[in-house]
Amino acid sequence: MNGFVSLVGAGPGHPDHLTQKATRCLRQADLVFYDALVSDEVRALAPQAEQIAVGKRAGREQTRQSDIVRWLIDGARQGRRVVRLKGGDPFVFGRGGEEALELQAAGVPYEVVPGLTTAVAAPTLAGIPVTHRGTSPAFLVVNASDASAYQAILEALPPASLTLVAMMAFRSRATLAEHLMIWGWAPATPAAVVLSAGTPRMWLWKGRLDDLPNVVAPQDSADGPGTIVVGGVVGLPIELAGGRAFDIEEVGV
Amino acid sequence: MNGFVSLVGAGPGHPDHLTQKATRCLRQADLVFYDALVSDEVRALAPQAEQIAVGKRAGREQTRQSDIVRWLIDGARQGRRVVRLKGGDPFVFGRGGEEALELQAAGVPYEVVPGLTTAVAAPTLAGIPVTHRGTSPAFLVVNASDASAYQAILEALPPASLTLVAMMAFRSRATLAEHLMIWGWAPATPAAVVLSAGTPRMWLWKGRLDDLPNVVAPQDSADGPGTIVVGGVVGLPIELAGGRAFDIEEVGV
Repeated sequence: MNGFVSLVGAGPGHPDHLTQKATRCLRQADLVFYDALVSDEVRALAPQAEQIAVGKRAGREQTRQSDIVRWLIDGARQGRRVVRLKGGDPFVFGRGGEEALELQAAGVPYEVVPGLTTAVAAPTLAGIPVTHRGTSPAFLVVNASDASAYQAILEALPPASLTLVAMMAFRSRATLAEHLMIWGWAPATPAAVVLSAGTPRMWLWKGRLDDLPNVVAPQDSADGPGTIVVGGVVGLPIELAGGRAFDIEEVGV
Repeated sequence: MNGFVSLVGAGPGHPDHLTQKATRCLRQADLVFYDALVSDEVRALAPQAEQIAVGKRAGREQTRQSDIVRWLIDGARQGRRVVRLKGGDPFVFGRGGEEALELQAAGVPYEVVPGLTTAVAAPTLAGIPVTHRGTSPAFLVVNASDASAYQAILEALPPASLTLVAMMAFRSRATLAEHLMIWGWAPATPAAVVLSAGTPRMWLWKGRLDDLPNVVAPQDSADGPGTIVVGGVVGLPIELAGGRAFDIEEVGV
């Protein structure tokens, strides 16, 4: 009866970006509860495990958070090694904190295994350094799908004083751009959209803030959450795709 | 003559937190230039490679950035697989953007391999979710050693409206705390210090913002850069050390 729960960050997509520890957790798992953002390639590292989709876009009704927590606890109490597999890092917009608190309250032993957060990995793989000497001294990460949560912060900030990384942002690109311009960010501020970062379908657009609302994504990436980066660092002439120097022709603009 | 440079993020310390791709780069390297923040355990993954310390605290004079870039270019032009190994992520306060631009200008093929940034991994391993529903909707990452760079940003922000992650922060803890309180953050705002995150020497202190200046670190960790986290998320009763549920007695306060 050595049941245990690992809250594991799967990183942005491809197993290349999984940590050694996350890989080990998957290989040793009996039971895996995975989010919609976790790729098939990552899940393939745990062929021995029972695998259950619990994500919002997993082709079924969204699983209730309270059910997920109950299943994690039940699995551990049955003596199983349970992995809760999340895209990115479990503690960045991943409800990992809520799950940790509930496991703790239930007296279930658990661990948290950090993963590459898309907030940094998506820009990095797109050749955009979130900080850069003389261009940006800091970066701010928000959830673009919840304007009420970021409004007070972005309204107060000196426009373009740092790099803004907006997660779950593609569907909210028009609202986000409009808000930033109302709050004083120049229409010509460099902006980027990164879709399916860290996967073979990775897609990058670079342009101006006021063009963000017009960005059209390839069909196979348009339903992903997407990362938007706004700030001077996007204007640096670093040309990468998937982390590798690439031809400028591949960029949308 | 297929020389190539990989700018590789080594993550916070232990090889457990290295990605599969970073591990592969190290195993295939001919020549490794490593920063002071990279652990011996990570470097041990490239026993076949010539390894050269270029960090600030590597027991020698700081290597000039222009020299590092020249050596990277020379190595690649000699047909070698060169790894530039940095703590955390190469594009988060790592001068990776500068190196990428110079390699590109020199026509040297290169890639960027993201790593776990300490900005997120240190809090996660300490049991602090940088975002948490109802507590913090966003996080801001600054370099604490450069107050002139963060002043305009932090001065403008509504106090405690998000999670503040300050990197390279331990030596600047008194200044940072003083500034935040001047700018309206309550003295009782929860604050944490994480030293040597992701290594066996990891050390965590949790307390109040106004106690930050008085934090005394164990001698074997006091010379590291350190991560400071300030905000309501630090007050969540999640008890982890090194990513694993642990006894509250191990915490400094």
